[in-house]
Amino acid sequence: MAKILKIHHIGIAVKNSEESSAFWQNALGLAVDHTENVVAQKSKVTFLPVGQSEVELVQPTDEDSTIAKFLTDRGPGIHHICLQVDDIEGMLQTLQEKGIRLINSVPMEEPGRKMAFIHPKSTGGVLVELYQVV
Amino acid sequence: MAKILKIHHIGIAVKNSEESSAFWQNALGLAVDHTENVVAQKSKVTFLPVGQSEVELVQPTDEDSTIAKFLTDRGPGIHHICLQVDDIEGMLQTLQEKGIRLINSVPMEEPGRKMAFIHPKSTGGVLVELYQVV
Repeated sequence: MAKILKIHHIGIAVKNSEESSAFWQNALGLAVDHTENVVAQKSKVTFLPVGQSEVELVQPTDEDSTIAKFLTDRGPGIHHICLQVDDIEGMLQTLQEKGIRLINSVPMEEPGRKMAFIHPKSTGGVLVELYQVV
Repeated sequence: MAKILKIHHIGIAVKNSEESSAFWQNALGLAVDHTENVVAQKSKVTFLPVGQSEVELVQPTDEDSTIAKFLTDRGPGIHHICLQVDDIEGMLQTLQEKGIRLINSVPMEEPGRKMAFIHPKSTGGVLVELYQVV
């Protein structure tokens, strides 16, 4: 049976990642590992490792993106929690069998990783991402 | 200098922890470690370990509690992120020197732990808890 391994990251919606990283980097002392343009999500992501997890600052690069809509609707703040799983297809199948509503019933694929989101309607209002290293 | 060690937990505001744990426990397969009445916070907390961190489901036990007000204002969902630190007083002093607004400038103490919240105004909308094991 598929197993959750750890919190992979916490995704935080920010308007401007340079301004936002001032708190995480300069005040809390976390280090920026790298910044990545995630074209498929129309966003720029800044990765700050913390223990075995990461804080990810997600800035929209296009007004027509889910993260831009989140910022308009709710303002900056925690956007999602991402859980690393050892078998994402197996976990998605289990969730569907249990009647859990999925945003992605088939994982999105990027080099080295597969991801899928679970709908907040089935989680108690939390946007949960599943993530498998491949 | 005080150092952030890991994500200690993600706090999730729930109306009913039995109903909410159905997703985390039965669907995702996380185990409930224990449930605790936190009198000072007027809440009942269900702890589900995941890797070196925890998911904490926080249910209000009194309508006059910050978690009940959060549920009324924003509905159920992620309430805060908690970072474990090796020296909470040192970290709070550093944050104050850097002009970061704190909810608790002196840590709250419970047996075995000290905690303090940073104001979302200074974090980009994220309620951040600092936590030290003592």
